[in-house]
Amino acid sequence: MLLENLTWPEVKNLKVSEKIVVFPLGSFEQHGHHLPLTTDTDIVTAVARAVESSRQDKILCLPTLWPGHSTHHLFFPGTLSVSQMPYIELVRNLCRSIAKMGASKVFLLNGHGGNDVPLRAVVRELKSEFPKLTVVFASYWSLASDSIKATRESELGGLGHACEMETSLMLHLHPEKVKMNLARRDGPKHEDQYRKSDMQYGRPIYFVNEFHEVSETGTIGHPDLASAEKGKTFFDGITRDVLKFVDEFATW
Amino acid sequence: MLLENLTWPEVKNLKVSEKIVVFPLGSFEQHGHHLPLTTDTDIVTAVARAVESSRQDKILCLPTLWPGHSTHHLFFPGTLSVSQMPYIELVRNLCRSIAKMGASKVFLLNGHGGNDVPLRAVVRELKSEFPKLTVVFASYWSLASDSIKATRESELGGLGHACEMETSLMLHLHPEKVKMNLARRDGPKHEDQYRKSDMQYGRPIYFVNEFHEVSETGTIGHPDLASAEKGKTFFDGITRDVLKFVDEFATW
Amino acid sequence: MLLENLTWPEVKNLKVSEKIVVFPLGSFEQHGHHLPLTTDTDIVTAVARAVESSRQDKILCLPTLWPGHSTHHLFFPGTLSVSQMPYIELVRNLCRSIAKMGASKVFLLNGHGGNDVPLRAVVRELKSEFPKLTVVFASYWSLASDSIKATRESELGGLGHACEMETSLMLHLHPEKVKMNLARRDGPKHEDQYRKSDMQYGRPIYFVNEFHEVSETGTIGHPDLASAEKGKTFFDGITRDVLKFVDEFATW
Amino acid sequence: MLLENLTWPEVKNLKVSEKIVVFPLGSFEQHGHHLPLTTDTDIVTAVARAVESSRQDKILCLPTLWPGHSTHHLFFPGTLSVSQMPYIELVRNLCRSIAKMGASKVFLLNGHGGNDVPLRAVVRELKSEFPKLTVVFASYWSLASDSIKATRESELGGLGHACEMETSLMLHLHPEKVKMNLARRDGPKHEDQYRKSDMQYGRPIYFVNEFHEVSETGTIGHPDLASAEKGKTFFDGITRDVLKFVDEFATW
Amino acid sequence: MLLENLTWPEVKNLKVSEKIVVFPLGSFEQHGHHLPLTTDTDIVTAVARAVESSRQDKILCLPTLWPGHSTHHLFFPGTLSVSQMPYIELVRNLCRSIAKMGASKVFLLNGHGGNDVPLRAVVRELKSEFPKLTVVFASYWSLASDSIKATRESELGGLGHACEMETSLMLHLHPEKVKMNLARRDGPKHEDQYRKSDMQYGRPIYFVNEFHEVSETGTIGHPDLASAEKGKTFFDGITRDVLKFVDEFATW
Amino acid sequence: MLLENLTWPEVKNLKVSEKIVVFPLGSFEQHGHHLPLTTDTDIVTAVARAVESSRQDKILCLPTLWPGHSTHHLFFPGTLSVSQMPYIELVRNLCRSIAKMGASKVFLLNGHGGNDVPLRAVVRELKSEFPKLTVVFASYWSLASDSIKATRESELGGLGHACEMETSLMLHLHPEKVKMNLARRDGPKHEDQYRKSDMQYGRPIYFVNEFHEVSETGTIGHPDLASAEKGKTFFDGITRDVLKFVDEFATW
Repeated sequence: MLLENLTWPEVKNLKVSEKIVVFPLGSFEQHGHHLPLTTDTDIVTAVARAVESSRQDKILCLPTLWPGHSTHHLFFPGTLSVSQMPYIELVRNLCRSIAKMGASKVFLLNGHGGNDVPLRAVVRELKSEFPKLTVVFASYWSLASDSIKATRESELGGLGHACEMETSLMLHLHPEKVKMNLARRDGPKHEDQYRKSDMQYGRPIYFVNEFHEVSETGTIGHPDLASAEKGKTFFDGITRDVLKFVDEFATW
Repeated sequence: MLLENLTWPEVKNLKVSEKIVVFPLGSFEQHGHHLPLTTDTDIVTAVARAVESSRQDKILCLPTLWPGHSTHHLFFPGTLSVSQMPYIELVRNLCRSIAKMGASKVFLLNGHGGNDVPLRAVVRELKSEFPKLTVVFASYWSLASDSIKATRESELGGLGHACEMETSLMLHLHPEKVKMNLARRDGPKHEDQYRKSDMQYGRPIYFVNEFHEVSETGTIGHPDLASAEKGKTFFDGITRDVLKFVDEFATW
Repeated sequence: MLLENLTWPEVKNLKVSEKIVVFPLGSFEQHGHHLPLTTDTDIVTAVARAVESSRQDKILCLPTLWPGHSTHHLFFPGTLSVSQMPYIELVRNLCRSIAKMGASKVFLLNGHGGNDVPLRAVVRELKSEFPKLTVVFASYWSLASDSIKATRESELGGLGHACEMETSLMLHLHPEKVKMNLARRDGPKHEDQYRKSDMQYGRPIYFVNEFHEVSETGTIGHPDLASAEKGKTFFDGITRDVLKFVDEFATW
Repeated sequence: MLLENLTWPEVKNLKVSEKIVVFPLGSFEQHGHHLPLTTDTDIVTAVARAVESSRQDKILCLPTLWPGHSTHHLFFPGTLSVSQMPYIELVRNLCRSIAKMGASKVFLLNGHGGNDVPLRAVVRELKSEFPKLTVVFASYWSLASDSIKATRESELGGLGHACEMETSLMLHLHPEKVKMNLARRDGPKHEDQYRKSDMQYGRPIYFVNEFHEVSETGTIGHPDLASAEKGKTFFDGITRDVLKFVDEFATW
Repeated sequence: MLLENLTWPEVKNLKVSEKIVVFPLGSFEQHGHHLPLTTDTDIVTAVARAVESSRQDKILCLPTLWPGHSTHHLFFPGTLSVSQMPYIELVRNLCRSIAKMGASKVFLLNGHGGNDVPLRAVVRELKSEFPKLTVVFASYWSLASDSIKATRESELGGLGHACEMETSLMLHLHPEKVKMNLARRDGPKHEDQYRKSDMQYGRPIYFVNEFHEVSETGTIGHPDLASAEKGKTFFDGITRDVLKFVDEFATW
Repeated sequence: MLLENLTWPEVKNLKVSEKIVVFPLGSFEQHGHHLPLTTDTDIVTAVARAVESSRQDKILCLPTLWPGHSTHHLFFPGTLSVSQMPYIELVRNLCRSIAKMGASKVFLLNGHGGNDVPLRAVVRELKSEFPKLTVVFASYWSLASDSIKATRESELGGLGHACEMETSLMLHLHPEKVKMNLARRDGPKHEDQYRKSDMQYGRPIYFVNEFHEVSETGTIGHPDLASAEKGKTFFDGITRDVLKFVDEFATW
């Protein structure tokens, strides 16, 4: 069920407490020379809706929150960011409305790396405020890491931002928004284990680089390896893996 | 220009400082038995885009902020609200990103009554933080009060929430989302000058009612008077009046 | 009843829950070359006390809060301002004390334009914290707009700050504090519908000018048209209109 | 000079940087069965004005801030309190306005015990924000401890709240506000060195009692020993001692 | 160099900007029936000091911050926790002092899982405030994951809290503090990929359990497999791996 | 009982509600040329533990909080300070954990002058949050003022920071940490009653000096008069006087 299609009496009749409330979290930020500012929002929305349409009875899907925490992208114009602390407060507030609807299970489905830390912080705050509410946070690439690994062609370093995967997904979902001829490899040069950079490589340390410190184009990774077909494979794998979690979550 | 269609280098080339940055502000809240939760967001988005498409060279239009301040609607499930103080902080943060892009003129185009007070508060905060940035706030019904008055059929009391105007606008813009058979007149009963209620009546006093204290259905006003044709007349008048302001603002 | 004349056992015996608690809100800020810093506080105090003395049994009148939100006047020395957010918190705190006394009806009677937005924000916060407490906010010039319109001689543009009305009121109430020979017309020059400026003209848009950006003297309006007799007419009209509301409020 | 009598151009001509800006800080709270809610504000205002009138050239005296931090009195109706943290923010804000006027020396002259801790906190915050501004805080009874000791008749325990001194001062300053026949001795019973209670006894420990936990009437001390003549002696001593400090401060 | 052994002139002579400032972050919380409340602080302090003593010229080591974010342990008495938001503010404040000393590289060496999210949030805040300061966060078990994997005997599920590793480390470092006879296996029962629990298993999702919801004893993992010798192997591996990072960090 | 030696089941068995919970509060800041950064923490820890070891059945002693409010020392490198407002929040948070353990009496035993104001503020906040919890704050030198007076040799001016007393105490407790040859008299030069400076002289006014404004070495007072024997006399007196209070507190 998409919440946005309903009236309030219809929501009232839904038995929200028996649904998994899926809240997709995107961003609005630079995505290199070739992808639009909406990339993360576009992708996470598509994933959420594909999942919702497969489990309409189980899921109540919220509209995607397009403002994200993108402070590290602010050097590149077009980025609209909410700083970390007010972003935590924003999502916490919206989740209070969800709790008030009677929800028992909330799934924060994330589509933007910068949201990771503040959304984990939100989960802790909500646990204190609503001890009985189960709030689960996941980024789609974490749930789908195996299928992504199976699909990517690039070595470590190829998946980051406006990269092989994001570009492929956009070629699959919104080809008209991709300026493929402007796609360029870019990103941090360091290859040591502490600084090498890839969505699927978990650094043993954590630090923050502003994007313009490590990328001239705003891209990190290998968008040149992207294709629409690969995008379909990524998308199908991601959707399947998110669905798998939703089905499991429904049994908790 | 719609910001969401651009890449960051395209934004960089725009000369944002010479544009009017239009930021449409909506909400996600109950709209009676017959209108969807997205009503305010749908309408303000349509207005903003109509205006943008007439002045593409002058305007940089942001995506509509669908989370609004709707605490007074929270009794009705489906409403997603950001409380007043974090809403102020949210919009302030997003406007910082706009300022960072080099904007000189920002137009906060509002589509939801509950946003009125916190957005005025935002304007004050931004003035202190960015003394050179001109930020103007207006709700579309304030800019278009004459044309709305000319179009409405209802007496005072007919325009409020999910009312003659909003229902007509939705019948014009998104007829498939309107359950016209469920539309019912509702709203506060008091007729004294201090409490009578209408979008076009400026009460001499200010107080807050939670919506469920004054309306059983969530509606305030006379949606039964709505029609698609009237919606078109409203919409054309509103668009023209907002455009008129934009053209004036461009000369400041 | 003036709260300041009582001891706590006398307050306890009052049945505060049956009174209208009137809280006058002033400011301490520049008022041009000819009026004192206390102008808004002086006027709203006089109004509140006139009203209280006519309805001693119905009203419990608090001392006037002289610190106001006057950030837009800070360029002119002598102004003592509380920024918007701490001002909201201040009034909210004081209203908590009122709620603790057992009040059921609070009337925030405002005498300073800069307090308008933050006081509306306070009303919302108090509604959430004390759902049963009725808090009404009004500026005296809103309640008395008709009688003010009938009395003023100036065209639109004449009523603003240290203007025809405020100067007249001070000539009536505190003639010794007025340096009439220094009174000068001043204020914004723009005559378009969006920017023309008058206390009785509701602009369709909202923006913030620091006062020194639009007035050299700190005055906006036509103080040269002021007189003590006119001040008496203004004052009597305002008092009558505020009383009319109080009598109505008592019946809610 | 009393700031409240001036216009902004007069303030501008004052050379505020060469003045001692005196900011009297009062409260609005229960003072037993026999004294009015304004007691602390009345007394500190009288002291400040006596001092100002003796050193008009040296002093710029602000209006007394009547809202104080009186949370410990809230059980007794009539009390209007600002909680500790927003009180700190309030005074800090007002002092920013003073700094903006160009002040170099600010004297926070306190008349209410409950303000002591938050005002010291304010001094620290101001030092960080305005390193060159000298802000001195003192309660009048600290500056005048010797003369108070010489005047009081009560043993330790007699001076607290609505006590021998405060009642005497009010009999001297505002006899019409004192209901002497209702004055009763009251206050904590403990006589050990850690808990015995007197304005002139510095406990080696600090703890907070709500007033109703230690006094039935709201009084702490011996108001029965009060007289108007004693009030004059207290007042003259206090004024002299505060003046002495002001003269010294002027040389720093 | 241990900061705590120095006087300020000695710090001044150190050239802090050429050091790696190591800030060990511990906690004070329940560690099952057999380990003391200081466990995390004891271990991270021992690691930090071992590392410092091997690189005295390169490192300036701060005292361990024993208050940690342990809200999820508060059900078990003895736990002293700082909530997430004030914990972020606390560490941020202390890092401001480090920045003021002239540091260029700060290493937040963490010893408590609950600190992970708020410390990552701190890193982001510090990057905005001190763009030139390099702040790296790492938990010791992340830096040493390979050597830990090589040493542990337990399957997934054995390493969590008061577990095989922590108990072994304490048996090695502070055997007198371990009540080995009270050590019991405990922890969540779920074995699905989303909920299985181990320090070395990265769940694809994130959620918060209060510890008492998943463990009766406060232990998660297999402390019964612990031994002092194993503790030495763990410790030497951890120390070596942290040193390896420090040496690398020194070259950045 | 030292909390740090316990497991949580041992804490549970303690009957915390019947104990006095002693929370020692130190700092980490410059102490002149001759004393280490840990001086305040070292001293207050030694006092707390001596007291605890004499009353093991009555006392539950927490670890010393080494981060203190030392903003006034930040000019001198090595100082690690928490600003006033977050320090209040920090201690408040930790005391919430104490309240959750079931405590009825908390003794905040302070060893650093800069903590005085914020800790008093904490006491007020805790009283509002936990009306039944008795929280007492005292600095050791206040409880022991008579014995300190009897032991010191210096005139007023000799006791301040890194002074006769603190240096003597460190010579007694940690002689290896004292560089006695570098001890120098230093401190403010003013001798007027408002500014003369000594731990045992209560100024009638309050203001803040950054330490570097009044001391070149960071010392205030006469460390040259220090000796280990005098340190023992100070320490025994302090311990006895703190114990005396603890015994009294136990009877409340």
